Amino acid sequence: MNRVRELVKLCSDWIKGGLSGQELIEELEEECGKLGLSEEFARRLLGLMLDEEERLRGGRPAPSGLKLREFASKVQELQRMGERVMRLELGEPDFSAPPSVVEAACKALREGYSKYGPATGIKELRQAVASKLSERFGLDLKPENVVITAGGTFAVYGSIEAVTKPGDEVVVIEPAWPLYAHQARWLGRRVLTIRTRFEEDWDPVEMLQEKVSKLTKLIILNYPNNPTGKILDRGSLKAILELAEDAGAWVLGDEVYMDFCYKDGFASVLELPAERKIMVNSFSKTWGMTGFRVGYIVSDPEVAMKVARAQNTAMTCIPEFVQRAALAALSDEESARRNIELIGERLKILYEELSRSKLIEVKPPEGAMYVFPRIKVDGFDSWRFAWTLLEKKRVSIAPGACFGEDYNSYLRISAVLDGEPLREACRRIREAIEEYS
Amino acid sequence: MNRVRELVKLCSDWIKGGLSGQELIEELEEECGKLGLSEEFARRLLGLMLDEEERLRGGRPAPSGLKLREFASKVQELQRMGERVMRLELGEPDFSAPPSVVEAACKALREGYSKYGPATGIKELRQAVASKLSERFGLDLKPENVVITAGGTFAVYGSIEAVTKPGDEVVVIEPAWPLYAHQARWLGRRVLTIRTRFEEDWDPVEMLQEKVSKLTKLIILNYPNNPTGKILDRGSLKAILELAEDAGAWVLGDEVYMDFCYKDGFASVLELPAERKIMVNSFSKTWGMTGFRVGYIVSDPEVAMKVARAQNTAMTCIPEFVQRAALAALSDEESARRNIELIGERLKILYEELSRSKLIEVKPPEGAMYVFPRIKVDGFDSWRFAWTLLEKKRVSIAPGACFGEDYNSYLRISAVLDGEPLREACRRIREAIEEYS
Repeated sequence: MNRVRELVKLCSDWIKGGLSGQELIEELEEECGKLGLSEEFARRLLGLMLDEEERLRGGRPAPSGLKLREFASKVQELQRMGERVMRLELGEPDFSAPPSVVEAACKALREGYSKYGPATGIKELRQAVASKLSERFGLDLKPENVVITAGGTFAVYGSIEAVTKPGDEVVVIEPAWPLYAHQARWLGRRVLTIRTRFEEDWDPVEMLQEKVSKLTKLIILNYPNNPTGKILDRGSLKAILELAEDAGAWVLGDEVYMDFCYKDGFASVLELPAERKIMVNSFSKTWGMTGFRVGYIVSDPEVAMKVARAQNTAMTCIPEFVQRAALAALSDEESARRNIELIGERLKILYEELSRSKLIEVKPPEGAMYVFPRIKVDGFDSWRFAWTLLEKKRVSIAPGACFGEDYNSYLRISAVLDGEPLREACRRIREAIEEYS
Repeated sequence: MNRVRELVKLCSDWIKGGLSGQELIEELEEECGKLGLSEEFARRLLGLMLDEEERLRGGRPAPSGLKLREFASKVQELQRMGERVMRLELGEPDFSAPPSVVEAACKALREGYSKYGPATGIKELRQAVASKLSERFGLDLKPENVVITAGGTFAVYGSIEAVTKPGDEVVVIEPAWPLYAHQARWLGRRVLTIRTRFEEDWDPVEMLQEKVSKLTKLIILNYPNNPTGKILDRGSLKAILELAEDAGAWVLGDEVYMDFCYKDGFASVLELPAERKIMVNSFSKTWGMTGFRVGYIVSDPEVAMKVARAQNTAMTCIPEFVQRAALAALSDEESARRNIELIGERLKILYEELSRSKLIEVKPPEGAMYVFPRIKVDGFDSWRFAWTLLEKKRVSIAPGACFGEDYNSYLRISAVLDGEPLREACRRIREAIEEYS
């Protein structure tokens, strides 16, 4: 009876007194070690207290990614009611999977490739991915390095599960795809946010050097970046990998926009030396296969097995006919090239059209499928603007606030319309910004 | 410094002194409440200490389901080497998806149903599931009650996430599909195991009445049962639902074998009154669609939204063309009926053939796709037998040990071969048992 009270009192004093993670974890681990308790116990105990501290401070807002999904549903509703909306808010190409891919899926379905399969994905596709990347980056990857996943989404989710534990610190660099932080928190990990700045060309290196510590277990990188389009140069990537090695942390390179580079200098995490790295990729963007839900991770065989186990636990496996479609995609380089060129041309149009307004600051696009301009209007609220733009101009964009608290004066605009409609959408965006007050 | 030591000491004393969950959780919650800490904190703290206690006691063995998967891989390897193996070890029908389903998938693919979609699943399929179940059970279900999931596997995984938190107690009734306990532990929940007995006709009610407590947050039921084939009668189900209501616990009815009933008396959790219930189902078994990875949950709209959010977090959504195939399956009652009859005939053969041996005790099959006979040989080891049977007789079955520690004298044999080969496989099993020593 007394012991319970005593324990709770100690926890409460601690939580309310404010916790400083780094020193604490070492102390906790040491004391736990002395009494034969595990490091994991120490880490989870600290994570638990840090979570409770956050809850007491007022908790976390609902993930902004979910708000974007609601917004997109609203747009769809308008469309169903017969309204014409120029949609630029989603990270989904307007082009569909090429016929080669569709027909490969149908062929596989008819040939009965619809039984349970390995949670790792089928060997042929793992081999094809390994070969393709080995050729591109001069490596010697094996099928054992590759796991085929339910899209890039599960690739990230499974990787977080594979290399971190509840209570561990995951670093997310903002502005960021909202799902990284959401997934990490969902899995009971703690998120350390790095907030890069427009003025510093979205460079994360210095901030990472300041903030990454021995508590850090995973750093999530995403270049070419969603939403900024930034490509991280090889030197910066190298610096980050070294920093991570020193801290004993893993680096996850989400490289789903790897093919969409419109400036030299992209380097994959696979190319640079580091012990602890995972590359994430997807078939969604390059081949317009978003709804197929197929992507992959590349890492050492041990991590690959852990990701496969996570996938096995959550969904047994993914459909083999989908994987056979992905196999066809890998050899359809013509479609990939066409899609990449198309996005490149549109990014140029977006840059050109948005640059015409004095109220819009936009950087020359480097990669991915987006521009992320800053709006130079005092007190600009990206959500309010998005709703007004939708109502008055029938154009939908993603508010900058979706990608982090600091980005409320930004908009993410996707290069997913053809040239003329895209120019028209930009005209309306410019108008709406001029009318905004 | 002192405080850390003091806290760790208290935890350590507690963990090593043995914990009795039920009284502790109430005390912990009360003390936490007094100091303004949340119930969740109390529960997670207790869960953490119980986990550490288990680890100190020697930890948990690797999930036996994974061993079965390795065994199945070995069988496949033999097959690739040209050996003929009669495979009865998997929970996968030998029949494939009917042409109606395959062609619906191809049509949807060609029509471009391969974009991002709602994490809940498409409205048409949710509506169709709601209508079909409403008609069958005399209910008034809406699409909002239904979420389409990545197979029955994610249906269970997402449901555990939806209605429990880390540290919560989940009740699993053995013999059981190994993934229930594995998923619950994977998600940081604690598993309370109920071990039903052959002699008591696998009846769980009394044991549940003894063991379910205020700590219990979820009871997982699976009738018709994998592996025993048992159908729980309506009265027993009602008793369990009432018991759960009293304890404030949820009941998950995994009813993926719902269509495979060869005895009257099956009742769905949907049919009986209870506040907290989730029904899980799948297209895998009834239509031979294992590799499509499509199933669903039915619950109240709030739980449905939580399952959808879990799915969104892990994989964004599942392919729409797969869902359109499932829609076609729902209206292909002819194929379903044929498959159900086929399995029924084979279960009869299994029963008849296995009953011929005095060393095999087998119950008349009630449902699902399995028999789960007891082998009356002293010191019988189901794993050793499985390997010997594979090596000497080229027949593969699932060892009873996969379904719980207490079932090492049992075998699970799946009704997934046609009549004559199935009789031959049974002959070999009988022989192998007679030769076993």
